Amino acid sequence: MRDFRLQYLQYKRRIDRRFQSIVDEGDGRPRSLMVPLKYVLSSGGKRIRPVLLLLAYEAVSGKRGGAGKLDGALNAALAIEALHNFTLVHDDIMDDAPSRRGRETVHSKWDKNTAILVGDELVALAYRALLKTKSPRIREILQIFTDGLLKVCEGQGFDKEFEHRRDVTLDEYLRMIELKTGRMVSVTLEIGALLGGGKRFEVSALRRFGYHIGRAFQIQDDLLDVTGDKRFGKKIGGDIVEGKKTFLLLQAMRKAEQKDRTILEQVMSGGRVASKDVRTVKKIYEKYGAVKSARVEVRKHVTEAQRVLENLRQSRARDMLHWLAGMLQDRRS
Amino acid sequence: MRDFRLQYLQYKRRIDRRFQSIVDEGDGRPRSLMVPLKYVLSSGGKRIRPVLLLLAYEAVSGKRGGAGKLDGALNAALAIEALHNFTLVHDDIMDDAPSRRGRETVHSKWDKNTAILVGDELVALAYRALLKTKSPRIREILQIFTDGLLKVCEGQGFDKEFEHRRDVTLDEYLRMIELKTGRMVSVTLEIGALLGGGKRFEVSALRRFGYHIGRAFQIQDDLLDVTGDKRFGKKIGGDIVEGKKTFLLLQAMRKAEQKDRTILEQVMSGGRVASKDVRTVKKIYEKYGAVKSARVEVRKHVTEAQRVLENLRQSRARDMLHWLAGMLQDRRS
Repeated sequence: MRDFRLQYLQYKRRIDRRFQSIVDEGDGRPRSLMVPLKYVLSSGGKRIRPVLLLLAYEAVSGKRGGAGKLDGALNAALAIEALHNFTLVHDDIMDDAPSRRGRETVHSKWDKNTAILVGDELVALAYRALLKTKSPRIREILQIFTDGLLKVCEGQGFDKEFEHRRDVTLDEYLRMIELKTGRMVSVTLEIGALLGGGKRFEVSALRRFGYHIGRAFQIQDDLLDVTGDKRFGKKIGGDIVEGKKTFLLLQAMRKAEQKDRTILEQVMSGGRVASKDVRTVKKIYEKYGAVKSARVEVRKHVTEAQRVLENLRQSRARDMLHWLAGMLQDRRS
Repeated sequence: MRDFRLQYLQYKRRIDRRFQSIVDEGDGRPRSLMVPLKYVLSSGGKRIRPVLLLLAYEAVSGKRGGAGKLDGALNAALAIEALHNFTLVHDDIMDDAPSRRGRETVHSKWDKNTAILVGDELVALAYRALLKTKSPRIREILQIFTDGLLKVCEGQGFDKEFEHRRDVTLDEYLRMIELKTGRMVSVTLEIGALLGGGKRFEVSALRRFGYHIGRAFQIQDDLLDVTGDKRFGKKIGGDIVEGKKTFLLLQAMRKAEQKDRTILEQVMSGGRVASKDVRTVKKIYEKYGAVKSARVEVRKHVTEAQRVLENLRQSRARDMLHWLAGMLQDRRS
């Protein structure tokens, strides 16, 4: 367990070190774009996606992450992280978010125009990194990647639509998060497996693993808004205050009696809930079993993710993926 | 000549007809994204880029644009047009432009968030269309395309920087327009040539052709702001009123005496020039030969573009490219 944690940090450091190199230096480039771009590339984060890609690659290729061994997958890992950062920069504009990971967002520190352009450049840099990957399956990999990008845009479209709707159902919500965040996680695992020369059943197993941990991660995120501790990056109860549709809200809506329903509808309508009322909403979530139901759902998807891994032959990477899935469930922040 | 005009319209109609098909229909997609996306795809325009790509393909492959014959290049042509439309949508946000091609821009008709997302989706749709292209050189084609996208972003970065600078030189300006608009034109011709299985010297000739007509087109655009007639889409003198750096302004700046210089510096500073002063500025342009110099520059690049074509074997497509280059020079709108 402790070993895995150390190994995770090693992978993460490797990504951090190389991530800056996806952008060109030099005089011939506009400073107004390069400075905020480097700000984004150095803003950290868990680097969970690129690590997952490297592990999927390792799990099917049998290559271990020694010096140079993972180079065949490293560019793809950087591409996935660049695309993820693109979504953060553009989403933050659309959500009018002042900060992320404890730092000002790009559009807050500079302006919206800069953030639009930085996001656009990140997409291009992601494709460039991915195109450096040497694989006979490059077209298929690019198609999967592009399909993932399309789904991210569609998911974001639904997310923005839902802000103005009071009748969003749990099913619609689950579909939205699958498009907006889930798909790119399964794409990540699938690309790692394809690069590693995975057989059809291996690629499929890793894609499904990605689907389940993506879903678990998102619902755990919703859960932590209610149950998380201070280490959790965002303000606890923030989703409730902002009227964000979450698994807990939509689950509670399905069962709530009229009196409680009225309160939940107020949250749904996006009419900002006062901080003091957050506790009331949390109690309603508990009362109708929404918190428990979210926990069950997270556990179900983590278990399913781990079960799917049994289709792969035993390897250190496979065991580490198993461990990572468990970590998601236990994270408090 | 008249034949070429008719043929151009045939190509254009073909693009118009197929362009809508790059986006998926169906229930599973957010209306808030699909409606503005279709609005963009149906907004017309000259479709010059996709037509150039088809002609480059035809010129080297010897295939003529009969039924189905150009299918090998059509998806790439649609990809180029989609990417072009992406730049228009995002640039219009950054420039706060209320209208384009006589219609409201996306961010005016809907809002900025919608326009950001529509632009992002267009990039993804462009890659998806390009990936449908069957070619053994697909990786090279995608690399060139991606490099073009990076250059567009960098060019836009410089363009925005220049708005706040009063000391932009003509050389810097030429470099900026090469990145922002020129490169994508040469990329267009290069991709057409690669898809058509062009030999190295053919690909190189068409790339250079693209470079020269791209440059000619941009300077002609600057010229038409001063000399154009009403059919020209944008308001005549608009560049001067808005303090946009143009070939004429920067050329006149190099030669102007102190008195005139002060007036030009006012334009440079972006301190909006009153409509009645536009005539004064135009006179200064004439006085220092900036208008003539722009005409000479356009003619030089058109001639060079046409000369480069002589490296290709004679074909109807080659002759039509020759004709198109001449059209650029003569256009009044």
